[in-house]
Amino acid sequence: MQENLVAATPSAYAYPLLIKQLLLNARSLHGDQEITYRGELRYRFREFDRRICRLASALTSLDVRHGSTVAVMDWDSHRYLESYFAIPMMGATLFTVNVRLSPQQILYTLNDSEAEVVLVHADFVETLTQIRDELRFVRSVVVLADGQPMPKTDLPVAGEYEALLEQASPEFAFDDFDENTKAAVFYTTGTTGDPKGVSYSHRNIVMHAMATAMSLCAPRDGQRLHREDVYMPITPMFHVLAWGMPYIAIMLGLKTVLPGRYEPEVLLRLRETEKVTFSHCVPTILQMLLQAAPQGDSALSGWKLIIGGSALSPALCDAALGRGIDVFTGYGMSETGPIVALAQLPPGFASNNRNDTAENYKKEVQMRCSTGRPVPMVDFRVVDENMNDVPRDGKSPGEIVLRAPFLTLGYNNEPQASEELWAGGYLHTQDIAVMHPDGFVQIVDRIKDVIKTGGEWVSSIEVERLISLVPGVVECAVIGVPDAKWGERPMALVVGRAGGRLQPSVVREHLMMHAKTNRISRYAVPEESRIVFVEEIPKTSVGKIDKKPLRKMAA
Amino acid sequence: MQENLVAATPSAYAYPLLIKQLLLNARSLHGDQEITYRGELRYRFREFDRRICRLASALTSLDVRHGSTVAVMDWDSHRYLESYFAIPMMGATLFTVNVRLSPQQILYTLNDSEAEVVLVHADFVETLTQIRDELRFVRSVVVLADGQPMPKTDLPVAGEYEALLEQASPEFAFDDFDENTKAAVFYTTGTTGDPKGVSYSHRNIVMHAMATAMSLCAPRDGQRLHREDVYMPITPMFHVLAWGMPYIAIMLGLKTVLPGRYEPEVLLRLRETEKVTFSHCVPTILQMLLQAAPQGDSALSGWKLIIGGSALSPALCDAALGRGIDVFTGYGMSETGPIVALAQLPPGFASNNRNDTAENYKKEVQMRCSTGRPVPMVDFRVVDENMNDVPRDGKSPGEIVLRAPFLTLGYNNEPQASEELWAGGYLHTQDIAVMHPDGFVQIVDRIKDVIKTGGEWVSSIEVERLISLVPGVVECAVIGVPDAKWGERPMALVVGRAGGRLQPSVVREHLMMHAKTNRISRYAVPEESRIVFVEEIPKTSVGKIDKKPLRKMAA
Repeated sequence: MQENLVAATPSAYAYPLLIKQLLLNARSLHGDQEITYRGELRYRFREFDRRICRLASALTSLDVRHGSTVAVMDWDSHRYLESYFAIPMMGATLFTVNVRLSPQQILYTLNDSEAEVVLVHADFVETLTQIRDELRFVRSVVVLADGQPMPKTDLPVAGEYEALLEQASPEFAFDDFDENTKAAVFYTTGTTGDPKGVSYSHRNIVMHAMATAMSLCAPRDGQRLHREDVYMPITPMFHVLAWGMPYIAIMLGLKTVLPGRYEPEVLLRLRETEKVTFSHCVPTILQMLLQAAPQGDSALSGWKLIIGGSALSPALCDAALGRGIDVFTGYGMSETGPIVALAQLPPGFASNNRNDTAENYKKEVQMRCSTGRPVPMVDFRVVDENMNDVPRDGKSPGEIVLRAPFLTLGYNNEPQASEELWAGGYLHTQDIAVMHPDGFVQIVDRIKDVIKTGGEWVSSIEVERLISLVPGVVECAVIGVPDAKWGERPMALVVGRAGGRLQPSVVREHLMMHAKTNRISRYAVPEESRIVFVEEIPKTSVGKIDKKPLRKMAA
Repeated sequence: MQENLVAATPSAYAYPLLIKQLLLNARSLHGDQEITYRGELRYRFREFDRRICRLASALTSLDVRHGSTVAVMDWDSHRYLESYFAIPMMGATLFTVNVRLSPQQILYTLNDSEAEVVLVHADFVETLTQIRDELRFVRSVVVLADGQPMPKTDLPVAGEYEALLEQASPEFAFDDFDENTKAAVFYTTGTTGDPKGVSYSHRNIVMHAMATAMSLCAPRDGQRLHREDVYMPITPMFHVLAWGMPYIAIMLGLKTVLPGRYEPEVLLRLRETEKVTFSHCVPTILQMLLQAAPQGDSALSGWKLIIGGSALSPALCDAALGRGIDVFTGYGMSETGPIVALAQLPPGFASNNRNDTAENYKKEVQMRCSTGRPVPMVDFRVVDENMNDVPRDGKSPGEIVLRAPFLTLGYNNEPQASEELWAGGYLHTQDIAVMHPDGFVQIVDRIKDVIKTGGEWVSSIEVERLISLVPGVVECAVIGVPDAKWGERPMALVVGRAGGRLQPSVVREHLMMHAKTNRISRYAVPEESRIVFVEEIPKTSVGKIDKKPLRKMAA
């Protein structure tokens, strides 16, 4: 549709959304603000800006051009932050390498992304050296020595990062270009197949920063980000661009603390000495911090912490609140920017934490642990198989599907997977959720794990949760098995306490009791014959229950 | 540049930035939130959403299509708010008519905008009837009776607003279209020539809402917008879309109060009964509110008020702070979205208001009254004639030029004026300003009024201000007059107190005294022969000093 456009074609004065604009205020208003690497190295935004130019100059001398891919293998550092800006601002693509992958997977991603230059921390030079003969596109390597002596390697080393920056010009003209230019790419790993490359454009990254910043800043009290917060990432910068948060911190002019490797004592020291007030992490890290921090003092109090990656449990939430941490869930995936929902307490709901009535406190914990409420500008739907919205009744399950100005448009070199991701014009998260009347969303299952019986959906996670409450149960997994009459029926595989005498009938009785109080539906309760005791439950490499072998076993 | 794009062509799953997305959260999270018209009519966002659909259905039945222009002539009302959404969401253009213009000017703007349908309040039917024979495109008129009997007119009346909405379907599918589609148009009036149409695209309006919301929400304490604020516009909704604020209020889910006509007692009543906390207005309205509010009580306390349109004087700022109003400047123009800078106190500066030390309080007032600091994402420069940035020293003047994702791309049917507006790829504000090292900007003059002498710029406003402090001076105007040696020299036209004996030499002595303390430069002081006493100083229709006849006179 071309009529009635304000400008039919991009003109000289059109303003593409580019990452360099996130630096405008940083440069003009926040030149004195600090960035520190582990509290050991420290400089101001003014210097950050110059170093970005130096990095771009240095990469230009390594023949990095618009369209080149530059890979980074580093711990969370100021160097990484410099790469977040310099590389995409040149029109090149920043590839944030997952350094936890196996050398073979890293090789695959470096080849698939067509990375030409790699910035590699001394700690990872050996990994890179191992795979060097099979690297198809890499022609230069920059070593981030990080205070260590230069490692011995036969990689095509162009120099050490700091030395190259020192030689490079502190001036660089970052031109405008199309806002749909690929700015960053990283790889997600499923349980099968090769890692899949997810890429974001400049427009995606800018829009995510603005929408997320707006959402985080908007609450009246607690849980809110403001200009005097001090930011420290505790989800790796290779992981979905550390949830896009470093871009927000720079845009808003926040003091930024880069912790390097995630060692609990370092994180807690930085929290104290640098007065960190705002972070984000996975539940495991939160658990670790709670354990490592000295009890009873106020080491953690007032820390705003967004939890993602996996569900925040009420027990962990309660423990964190008890230590004064303002903890809440952020929801998203690698493909979604990532943040599309935040579990902020709604306007008018005053948080009184543990001092509140038991009922209000329970409600508060429930909200903080929920999947959250959609951020502005996100078309966030929970739909049935025909793409109709399910009732907002807190119990009708459907798949979360999304549109937003910051979702990835697909996977690198994976047209079929990309098409499936975007079936029907919405991004399919494969998360099954219910939506409450007040807009709070609660994920109940993954689509591949949900059980369809007699046309109704049963959450395997909910049944597992209830079985785990039965005395004598160590762990369990619930899967769907084929059934002639109902299509599918739930089957529970249960590990009982060693030497225990737990019977399937007892498990079933417990579940039926919950069905009577409507905690679950009657058809969600497996028949006695489908409650099977096993010795152990298979796990994936990252410790999650692996239902695929179970399904094979059952079939 | 087409290589390396995430998506080379718009695809089904691209997500154009459209005004309808500002409603997504309003619909899913804030259905219970209230909108009230003068406290007399009240409904919830849920109903607002349905009424938007009804309005779109009704307009469709009047053959409004993608590309049509629909004009609105109304006081600030819920109907206006409905038009802000329904009309652009249909792909039509909302034309917000300046009802203060003369009937002939209104005629010009209705013809220039090619308005096909007019929504007109009963109070303005007579005006429209007067010009009906010369309206070239209007084919239907909808009367907003607003409780009054339907006025008699021979306009092509299609019906009354409420009656049409009642008959119309509460369902309407708002399709996607190009984000550069023209969403709104309005007209600016200069001192010469016809009004000029300024238009904004959907992308402009969405980006302005996001950037402004983010900026307003980001401060730690005072001066900040949050989700529990109650919003009431006090700059007319026909005027640069009420600074875009109604869109922000709906996007963030704020209770919204529409006051109708601006009567001080109504505004103060609504402030009290509806608990309004956030507004914006021109200094004259603030003055009026201060006068009308009962002294000594807390009627105004805690009201966050952005001031724009003309400069906030330190005296008025002090008076407002004294009544507990959290007052600060927002800077922009019709062509700029409008907001590109906000005079927020910087992080770390604690506002203690009048309780602070005299020095700190003076500094605070100065900051609140300044032009402000650039909002994120705005490329805000102060440049010399060669487009080089002037030093950020608080004294080197230059023109404010801008790039941002929400500036108008030009004027309706005015290619030459549009080209001048955007000379060199930046929007030229024609405001002369200095930039302080901390990023605060201070406008010192309009470009047409600034005096260039011996290659240096002299602010006519600053010289006028200093002359006005000379005892016996009633008012004055300073203009540039041609000079063979210096190019231009300042000339002061002074009105002395009746019966006074003020001499040019006294005025000059006062100015030289200020030059000695570096308040102004020596070359800014007019020669004695160029300090001329006059009977009166000509004014424009809105009461501003009109320098054009003065320049003619002097020449």
